[in-house]
This record gives sequence, structure tokens and C-alpha cells, in this order.
Amino acid sequence: MSQKPLHLFTPGPTPIPEFIRAKMSEPAIHHRKSEFIKLFQVARDGLKYIFQTTQEVLMLTCCGTGVMEAAITNVLSPGDAVITVNGGKFGERWADICRVYGVRPIEIFKEWGTAVQPDEIVAALKANPDVKAVYLTYNETSTAVAIDLPAIARAIRDNSSALIVVDCISALIALPLKMDEWGLDVVISGSQKGFMLPPGLAFIALSERAWETVPKSKIPKFYFSLQKAREALETSTTPFTPASSLIIGLAEVVAYFKNQGLESIWNEHNRHAAAVRAAVECLRWRLVSEAPSSAVTAVYLPGKINCAQFITRLQEEHGIVIAGGQGPFKNKIIRIGHLGYYHAADILGLVSALEETAAHFGWPLEPGAALKSAQEILLARY
Amino acid sequence: MSQKPLHLFTPGPTPIPEFIRAKMSEPAIHHRKSEFIKLFQVARDGLKYIFQTTQEVLMLTCCGTGVMEAAITNVLSPGDAVITVNGGKFGERWADICRVYGVRPIEIFKEWGTAVQPDEIVAALKANPDVKAVYLTYNETSTAVAIDLPAIARAIRDNSSALIVVDCISALIALPLKMDEWGLDVVISGSQKGFMLPPGLAFIALSERAWETVPKSKIPKFYFSLQKAREALETSTTPFTPASSLIIGLAEVVAYFKNQGLESIWNEHNRHAAAVRAAVECLRWRLVSEAPSSAVTAVYLPGKINCAQFITRLQEEHGIVIAGGQGPFKNKIIRIGHLGYYHAADILGLVSALEETAAHFGWPLEPGAALKSAQEILLARY
Repeated sequence: MSQKPLHLFTPGPTPIPEFIRAKMSEPAIHHRKSEFIKLFQVARDGLKYIFQTTQEVLMLTCCGTGVMEAAITNVLSPGDAVITVNGGKFGERWADICRVYGVRPIEIFKEWGTAVQPDEIVAALKANPDVKAVYLTYNETSTAVAIDLPAIARAIRDNSSALIVVDCISALIALPLKMDEWGLDVVISGSQKGFMLPPGLAFIALSERAWETVPKSKIPKFYFSLQKAREALETSTTPFTPASSLIIGLAEVVAYFKNQGLESIWNEHNRHAAAVRAAVECLRWRLVSEAPSSAVTAVYLPGKINCAQFITRLQEEHGIVIAGGQGPFKNKIIRIGHLGYYHAADILGLVSALEETAAHFGWPLEPGAALKSAQEILLARY
Repeated sequence: MSQKPLHLFTPGPTPIPEFIRAKMSEPAIHHRKSEFIKLFQVARDGLKYIFQTTQEVLMLTCCGTGVMEAAITNVLSPGDAVITVNGGKFGERWADICRVYGVRPIEIFKEWGTAVQPDEIVAALKANPDVKAVYLTYNETSTAVAIDLPAIARAIRDNSSALIVVDCISALIALPLKMDEWGLDVVISGSQKGFMLPPGLAFIALSERAWETVPKSKIPKFYFSLQKAREALETSTTPFTPASSLIIGLAEVVAYFKNQGLESIWNEHNRHAAAVRAAVECLRWRLVSEAPSSAVTAVYLPGKINCAQFITRLQEEHGIVIAGGQGPFKNKIIRIGHLGYYHAADILGLVSALEETAAHFGWPLEPGAALKSAQEILLARY
């Protein structure tokens, strides 16, 4: 096999930029010492900017599922009812975690690939006026569906006092997010997606009214106690040993984001996603998502092309790593991640590899056409 | 301030060797791809060697407290009683976590710095024959007390069927551990101590009889479900995104440990600890621990020396970072970590800096005497 480096186009973990890897590989700093505390403050301030909130964004040492659990166990009590949207693997997980903790999920089932609409959620709220919260997935990584979060949040706020809890694990950075302006109550994310860090650090921010529910919650928690995490912030620390190498990387990442500006980064993701979709359309392949996301593109390959073989050849011949489908989509779709740190040239390399691999498996195409359609979008801003 | 590198002698995080940092700073590998799975297997096999067990050692993405929680919530049910030993910050934490989950801790209180004895635990077991488990701390990082774990485990086994659960977070690698031979039921550890990795990955192994209790446990858990983690191992993976950069580092570390041999590494830690204690004795300072550990040495500084000032000067003048006391020991003691990757020369540098700093603060001493006493121990094997 080739010794050349592989290029990750998976929907997380994303490629980790060289400048971040270099920083994280410096000798260990002790997590209670002033040198670390300075970086911790940079990360803490940067997270507020990225979440677009004046609230504290807590850092937990865990992966995304851990912080999903925290978003349930800290604001609810056994017997509470909540609305969840089951239209993919991660929306389903909200309900799975709820059940474990004695919370009753009222699931809105959506066909995988379709996006829940504001009126569906309003109808569920009207039918179940006692629900304590609505649990949403901004970008459903398993289907590449991005919901219209501002519209949905507005509809919920207009019709209910239920808390709005949003899994932004794979959405943040790739899609616009304005926690305070949109009236979101609990927002979570993780290090290994748009933040371009290794997995192992997760984030959660609560609105004031979400914080008010915390002392009332009757679900037991210790490691994931947000109250403890909030108290520890008073002395610029975490209640338990933090994932310090990731926080050191995070301080670099947030400085980069601030320097670029969020607006510019959202636009870039939007452009990269549009270019990939243009190429897919040019190849006459069908998108899985009716509401495509700027973080990941999911595609049905034509029946004659085997997904697993396609993915393997893409890696072996072109060094490009993409993902397959999960659950009902296993061996039916491919998923191309384009959240993170890419140049237009990287996206064009990806498209070229998709073209060549499609041709290799006998798919009729005009060489260079998909590439051209992607380039038109990528370079339009010049 | 000096630009020279700092040397960590804290009881975790420990210095991360260059060869591990280099490995972890390579471009990201996707955690579901074969390249990663190979490293995962190396780490998985290596952990069995280090725990000296034929059982699986599960890897969880969290810090040590998370895996302490898992060691409670997976094997107990609300209403169960357990014995814990409260003679330091981490022994106390076992009881704190138990209470949150409705488990009743029967605490054996020990003066900080003293070690619980087998007969004390046997007496508690006889007085409380219904206890489901005994929760121990092999090396109490807050006091530098190492218990006589094999003797205690034998005494428990001879007198009770209670599970033996041991926090080996700061003990593993530094102190001998033979999980199967000693009849331990649950053993936990973390990445940032003897494993010489950044914090964020934790380990847990269960004996067969501990696994038998897991399906009966009535405490809810999702992220920390060991059942889920065990099932995921069947396909060489984890139930949720693993801390992949740390697992990549772990694969390097375990190869190093295997190559050196555990026996040799235990001896080295023992030698380093003895050298530091010899120096402390030569300085006429008093050890905190009546049962000193090979992982960390805790020392009462004489009343005329301010601990915080001592620690600060040690760092600023000598680049040597040590820790202070916690809880009742705050500003009363210093703690010198010597678990990890040190040469004899590193230990001598530390001792020399302790000497100079003591002299600086007016402590009468014969220059070089402490150094000589440490060297005698360090070089005795030549």
C-alpha cells in the first residue's frame, strides 16, 4: 500500500491541522498550574464566541454521547416527558438515553433523509402540553440532514415553555449557530468535528432558564454534574482532571476561528458542501438528504456500484477516506465529510477521485465534468 | 521567566515521553478504520499484561473519576451497602459517588497519612455481613499512602464474598499489581499517571464474578455502561467515539512496558521513591505517609518554610514542578511525583533542587548530603 498520507473526508474525526498537532505535542503542562489556566481561559472565552452566547460553555472530558447524557440527566427528572426526533442514529440516541433514566421520550419518527418541520414539532407540543423539553439534532450525521434550527426554535418558543436542547456535535462551525439569539436552552458539541481536534472533549452551554431546572433535577449524576463543573469555573478549573492536551489544542483552534471570523468559516463550509453536491448532481447520483447539510454529504450510489468496494478503492488509490452508511443505510450510501480545515483544492482532489472511482466501477460519465461543476462553485467568489 | 523546559514531578499528569508525543501528533486516523483497529488491539492486549489479567480491560473516554463512577454504577444497586476507606481525597470520593447513586457507604475513617490494615477491613466486614463490595484506593495520591493490597485482598477473600474494587489510578505501573493472582474483582486506572499519557482515557477490568453482578445492577447508566463497552469489543471497537489520539499513544506505551518488563519497571519506581525518601530523611523532614508509596512522596516541610513559596521557587529557579497538599493538607505538605519516565539523573536533579531551595529558605543542611544519600540508592544496582 501507498505510504503517502491519507486525507480524511469523514464526518468526524476531521483532519487535525498541523499547527494544532504541533501545539498538542509539546511537553505536558500540569492542569492546575498558571500556564495551563491561561490557555483554559482562552478556550473558555473562545467557546462563548463559537456558541454565540454570554453563558459559560462547560468542557467535559468525554465524547459526544457523554455530553448528550449530561444534557438529559442535569435538566430532567424521572417521569418527565420530552419530545425527540427519530430520523437518524443520533436523534434515536436522545430517546435511548432518556429511557435509561426514566424519562419518557415522545418520538417524532421521520424517514431517514427527511427533515423535521416546525409545524410537526408544534403539533407534538400541542398534543403533549406537559413535555419538559424538545431534543433536537441540528445536523444528523447519519443522514446529512440539517434542520432549520432557527425556524424550529422560534416555533417552539412561540408555542411552549419547553426547553430547547440541541445536539450540535457535528453542526457547530459548519453551520451557523446563534445560541442566545435563537433562544436555545442547551447546546452541546464535541472536539472531533468542526473543532478539528482529536475526540475526548465535549462542550455544553445552558441558558438561564435551563440552569434554573438543574437544582430541581432528580436524576443522579456525579461525573457529569454540570453544577460541579460550573462551580469549578469560579477558580478557572474543572471538577476532575481535564483532557488537558485537547484543551491546549482548543485554545489554538478558537484563536484561529476568531481570527478568521465565524461568518467567513460558515460561508466556506457552505461553499465546500455546495461544490460536493454539484459534483454529485453532475454524476447523476441521488442525495440522501432532502435538507442537505454543510457538514456532510450523503449519497446513494447507483445500484451497480458496491459502496464498500467504492470506499476501499477511494482510499487505496487516492488516499481519500470517506464513510459508509449506518443502521438502515449500511452498504447503501456513502458519506463525505467536509467539515473542518479544507482548501478548495482539497475539495477538488476529492471530486476528482470520486469521478475516477465511479468510472472505474463502470459508471458512465464525462471525465472532468463533475470537477468543473465543483470548481465553478468553489471559485465563484474570486 | 526562564524559557527552559519545565520538569514535571507531579503525581499526574506525568511527563509524556517524546516518542509518545511524536506518535500522537501524527495526522488523525479514523477510529473505525483498520489502521486504528490494529493499534486498538495492541493497546487492548497490552492492558491485559499491565493489569496481569486474562479479563478484558475496557477503555472509556473520561478521566479517573468517570471510571470510579462506572465501578459503582455497573456492579451495585440502590440500597446496597459497601465498605469504603476514607483516609484521603480519593478514598473519600468512593463514598461521595456511592451516596449520589443511593448506595450506602460504610466508611472506615483513617487519619490522613495512615494505611488501613487487613484486620480493620475484616472487622468491618464482620460487623456488616451484607456489604456487596469493598472499595479501596491502592495509592492514595493525596497522602502518598500505599496499602498492602495483596494482604488486604487475601483477608477479604478469606472472610467474605464481597467484591474487591480497587482504584489503581495512580498506583498502576508504579506499584506491583496482579489482578488475577490477588483475586481483585474490579480494577480501574487512568491514562495520565503511570501510563505517561495525557488525561482523558480510563481503564476498567472486571473479574468473572464481578461481571456476573452487572446484569443485576439497577443503577441507570448509558455512557458508562460496561455491558455496552464489552459488546463493542466483539467487533474490536468502543460503543462511542474513543479518545483515539490517546489510544494511539497507549499502543506505544504498552509496547515500551512489554519490552522493559513490568518487574523491571516496578523495581525502578521503587528505587526512585526510595532515593527521594532517603534525601527527605537526610534533610530531617517528616514523611506524611506511614506506608510510603513508590508513586508519590508527601512531605511536611518544617514550619519555617512556606509550602507555596517553596513550590513556586522550585519551579522558577529550577524548572521543577511539584504539587502541594489537598484538603486538610493544603499549604501543609508538598507532594513529589516520581511515577513515570525518569532517569536516575532526573531524580538527582530533583533532589539537588530540593536541597538548594531548602537552603534558600534558611533550612540548615550540609550541601550535597541529601544528594549523596539519594545517589547511593539509585546507583546501588551497578
